[in-house]
Amino acid sequence: MTTRYKLTIAYDGTKFHGFQKQKDLRTVEGVLEKAITKIAATGEEIKVFASGRTDAGVHALGQVVHFDYPRELDPESMLRAINTLMPLDVLVKKSEIVDSDFHARFNVKKKTYMYRVDLGHYTDPFKRFYTGHYPYPIDVEKIKIALQDVVGEHDFTSFAAAGGVIDYKVRTIYSATVEYNKENNELVFEFTGNGFLYNMVRILVATLLEIGNGRRDVHDFLRLYEVKDRQQARGTAQASGLYLKQVFY
Amino acid sequence: MTTRYKLTIAYDGTKFHGFQKQKDLRTVEGVLEKAITKIAATGEEIKVFASGRTDAGVHALGQVVHFDYPRELDPESMLRAINTLMPLDVLVKKSEIVDSDFHARFNVKKKTYMYRVDLGHYTDPFKRFYTGHYPYPIDVEKIKIALQDVVGEHDFTSFAAAGGVIDYKVRTIYSATVEYNKENNELVFEFTGNGFLYNMVRILVATLLEIGNGRRDVHDFLRLYEVKDRQQARGTAQASGLYLKQVFY
Repeated sequence: MTTRYKLTIAYDGTKFHGFQKQKDLRTVEGVLEKAITKIAATGEEIKVFASGRTDAGVHALGQVVHFDYPRELDPESMLRAINTLMPLDVLVKKSEIVDSDFHARFNVKKKTYMYRVDLGHYTDPFKRFYTGHYPYPIDVEKIKIALQDVVGEHDFTSFAAAGGVIDYKVRTIYSATVEYNKENNELVFEFTGNGFLYNMVRILVATLLEIGNGRRDVHDFLRLYEVKDRQQARGTAQASGLYLKQVFY
Repeated sequence: MTTRYKLTIAYDGTKFHGFQKQKDLRTVEGVLEKAITKIAATGEEIKVFASGRTDAGVHALGQVVHFDYPRELDPESMLRAINTLMPLDVLVKKSEIVDSDFHARFNVKKKTYMYRVDLGHYTDPFKRFYTGHYPYPIDVEKIKIALQDVVGEHDFTSFAAAGGVIDYKVRTIYSATVEYNKENNELVFEFTGNGFLYNMVRILVATLLEIGNGRRDVHDFLRLYEVKDRQQARGTAQASGLYLKQVFY
């Protein structure tokens, strides 16, 4: 008899080689599995399943994972036990016992990503790991018009990094917003959709910034959906600005 | 003929072994002197003078330094030249030409330090290098009462780290405030004074947190000024929460 736990976790991705386990490299999955395996103390490695991977340098405010535990522990004790073993750049924010057919990846209904862009002329020493940097003039209104073209069901082939293994590249974006925060001179993007291709948010942001800077037509997204060509979208915004904010089931 | 420059700089202290130059260790003074010496290109090392040192892990939003340059360059070009050679965790925010009798340390009239305290139960992955952490109940009103005892001219012997070489330990604090930021569950302290002893702000904060937590009498400062005994003040708040915010001349 095992008990399935769902964890909601936050991490600072700066010092991780991404989420997914890799031999001899520090990854979020690696530190989680090591801790849970230690708590279980059965000698068997406990495997963790996430809603999806995040790349090196990408952060999470609400990544979700599940795992099967050989006994039953109340969720709050599980949370405390794991956090005691976590390094300071990972924090379990919530722990729940779920049905044994819950799956952190397969049951995802939608996800929200946030992207922070620092518009300052120079890189801010305190933001270098936590924002992307775009030190060029931006017309936020142009970006807001372009975001209307992002919402909806589209073929995002032009916005998928080469190397992806998924053939079907149609995704639905339910909302796509940007806010300019005057106090810290940042743009904050949020995208909620039923799925995101590899590097898709970062490519969307790079394209949107070029639109805001006037280097692309405001409605260039309509053309990019048609041409289905990654070379046309070119840029990829820095990993450091990207946050997996929430996963919905 | 040399030209004296005054620079206002910000740095993330996380990856520095403090401000002061040390052989084979990465310090803020070290990277600054190396860059300015390279720009001057005379073969002579250019020496930088700061308003004061900061310890390893301590940050600056407005540290001030001066140096003598063998030629004259307009201040904006100097700023750009140095920033081009700075690592991403140091930023020159302002560059000015000053009289040759200006001295970054000896002419200081007052300084403002900020200290951020995260009150969250667990260490926030995104704040671990940028706040001190105090996961215990706090009564902010008690701290505000105690801060009234901090303002004024006092003998801060009880609040000076052992190892200081300064005998005269009377300093004047012009203002000492705390604000509770509900949004991020942080206390933000600010202290402005004519001078600060080694570790003094961190010891003041540790004592104030104990007062807020009810572990010390609200007016314990009055007793601590009298006893002149570092052992009585005990704690030192973490370096990661401390920011040199501004230096006044």
